[in-house]
Amino acid sequence: MKNFNFQAGTKILFGKNKINELADEVLNYSNRILITYGQGSVVKSGLLDAVKNKLEEKGIFYKELSGIQPNPRLTSVKEGVQLCKDHNLGFILAVGGGSIIDATKAMAAGFSYDGDPWDFMLRKAVPENPLPLGSILTLAATGSEMNGGAVITNDATEEKLPMGSDLLRPKFSILDPTYTFSVNKYQSASGTVDIMSHIFEQYFTPDSGTEIQDCIAESILKTCIMYGPVVLEEPENYEARANLMWASSLALNGLTVTGKMMGDWSTHMIEHEVSAIYDLTHGVGLAIIFPHWMEYVLNERNAFKFARLGKNVFGIAEESEMDAAHKTIEAIRNFFTSLNMPAQLTEVDIPSDRIKEMGEKACKFGPIGYFKRLNAEAVTEILEMAK
Amino acid sequence: MKNFNFQAGTKILFGKNKINELADEVLNYSNRILITYGQGSVVKSGLLDAVKNKLEEKGIFYKELSGIQPNPRLTSVKEGVQLCKDHNLGFILAVGGGSIIDATKAMAAGFSYDGDPWDFMLRKAVPENPLPLGSILTLAATGSEMNGGAVITNDATEEKLPMGSDLLRPKFSILDPTYTFSVNKYQSASGTVDIMSHIFEQYFTPDSGTEIQDCIAESILKTCIMYGPVVLEEPENYEARANLMWASSLALNGLTVTGKMMGDWSTHMIEHEVSAIYDLTHGVGLAIIFPHWMEYVLNERNAFKFARLGKNVFGIAEESEMDAAHKTIEAIRNFFTSLNMPAQLTEVDIPSDRIKEMGEKACKFGPIGYFKRLNAEAVTEILEMAK
Repeated sequence: MKNFNFQAGTKILFGKNKINELADEVLNYSNRILITYGQGSVVKSGLLDAVKNKLEEKGIFYKELSGIQPNPRLTSVKEGVQLCKDHNLGFILAVGGGSIIDATKAMAAGFSYDGDPWDFMLRKAVPENPLPLGSILTLAATGSEMNGGAVITNDATEEKLPMGSDLLRPKFSILDPTYTFSVNKYQSASGTVDIMSHIFEQYFTPDSGTEIQDCIAESILKTCIMYGPVVLEEPENYEARANLMWASSLALNGLTVTGKMMGDWSTHMIEHEVSAIYDLTHGVGLAIIFPHWMEYVLNERNAFKFARLGKNVFGIAEESEMDAAHKTIEAIRNFFTSLNMPAQLTEVDIPSDRIKEMGEKACKFGPIGYFKRLNAEAVTEILEMAK
Repeated sequence: MKNFNFQAGTKILFGKNKINELADEVLNYSNRILITYGQGSVVKSGLLDAVKNKLEEKGIFYKELSGIQPNPRLTSVKEGVQLCKDHNLGFILAVGGGSIIDATKAMAAGFSYDGDPWDFMLRKAVPENPLPLGSILTLAATGSEMNGGAVITNDATEEKLPMGSDLLRPKFSILDPTYTFSVNKYQSASGTVDIMSHIFEQYFTPDSGTEIQDCIAESILKTCIMYGPVVLEEPENYEARANLMWASSLALNGLTVTGKMMGDWSTHMIEHEVSAIYDLTHGVGLAIIFPHWMEYVLNERNAFKFARLGKNVFGIAEESEMDAAHKTIEAIRNFFTSLNMPAQLTEVDIPSDRIKEMGEKACKFGPIGYFKRLNAEAVTEILEMAK
């Protein structure tokens, strides 16, 4: 087990009607805030009005920034920064899924930085003294509600890159599972895949002596496998939505990667290059690419880790580690298929003519991955398998 | 899943030589501190000198309070409060195991309270504006390093009672597994039992829909079962000590009880009454009482929960839930026995003549327990089984 620091400081307010505690939490930071949201689902559901009512009851002044897209754009980030500056706002409240929260983090960091916020993605600058932010989560998927990471797309350059800082962890996040009742089957399935992918990225590493982390990772996978199919059939099953929502936060708040050098993250890097061009739903891209990545990286030395996952999560008990590993990958793909997720890029109408470009972009800072290092040729090969 | 708030705000500094970050962490709060420790093991090991050196290098003024006993006494708490007041100290650093940290929490709360600190235990007062505190952990057991709870013994009345407040969570805790290399077999085994007991207390509840919490609980149990025996044979096995140390913190920081109404805690209440009189090592008392409690409370309606634990942790696959439940309890007792823990009170020379008194004291505020409510007669019966 490697040395680590761990402080999951985000205050989680979990359950029905937790919005009743919103205004008091906000007032710990400011009485002038920006509300950020997406393309209308929180308007249609009535959640936005409920948020405004809660804020108005306590005399909190707010401005709004709407229209933030999935795969959030740098232009939205810049708009948000400008609004906070123009109106002297002291807090940003994200109402939505991971894209809204990610964009909000970049705004919070950008507020205190004189240059272009894209500099954070290019590693030319690190966030300092950001605006405090909070979230009201409406989709169980990214885990952004309990960590300091964000992924932003530069509309001009078709690049999608991550940034992160512990300073950008939401001060609080309201997780009311009923807000996810209206999430459709496709987005629900995609969210489940996203949660599982975060676990995979942190589970498949070359570190040793991290038994407790790996057991907890398997716990979160088992929860996803139990409840992912349930929410497709019963969208208003509270227990299923609640377990997935809490799984989403625990999957990426540091808990399963503490004690390891880092996660692998190459599959996410590859998926980002695909969705930067084609605006693919993140979880769908991961459902396609992850099993191919697994097949590509599997070898005699690391088969034991796939076999362990297969045994503890799927009950696969083959004699040979390599046989068990192959069965595990098959079980994961079958599970994704059972959620109606595609297995190849052509199924979502993504052509193969820009695969080499995506491979090169994924490695623009050098080879990626930690479980296995991948150069541009390797990424291209994985994308060829996935096409 | 019930509504909950969760904020495990303690900053964990985990690993070898993390003491190098001590002074900077302390200086976030004060440059005048009290160091609390026990009966000399941290002197003998050289840890106390190392702590002092780190503090002196950064010009931090300190006073010391030594001699805090296992099952920490109210008299120590009062001494600590007085030292902080007399010397205008602004932070308390506990160096030791759970007893030291518990006593330190009571001091921190007592500092800002004009009455007798025992009032917190009697629920006549709640902590407000306590002194900030931190810990350097030397024993994997109680989880006190990452939560706001404490158990204090009143030497005058032979009572042992809990108190708790989120305000009493350590600001930081340094978890260096090498500090536990010198813990002897008896204390190591007792610590492992303590960790597992915290899981049991929070696992055996009547709540439903808490799949992710129960899976994580099973993860922590599996980690204890894997590594508990290892540290008895190989006291300097870093990975084993590290996994148990992190298990200790995760077992009682709220992670496995969020979404439930509360834990059961009756076994702890019963053990407290025994150890308040006989000064029994906490984990040893739990190893004796827990299997008897399990046998006493097991019935047709709750057998499924024992069977689930048996299946997921011990691989017990009986057809009948009741058979599986009995086998599970047997497996737990056998595991404790494999750690050289006793199974009956007579094995640690505790007589049975005060059992009725202990049963009455355990229920002095009314019946105890949540998985099954127990009155004084029921507690007495469990202690009769355990005698």
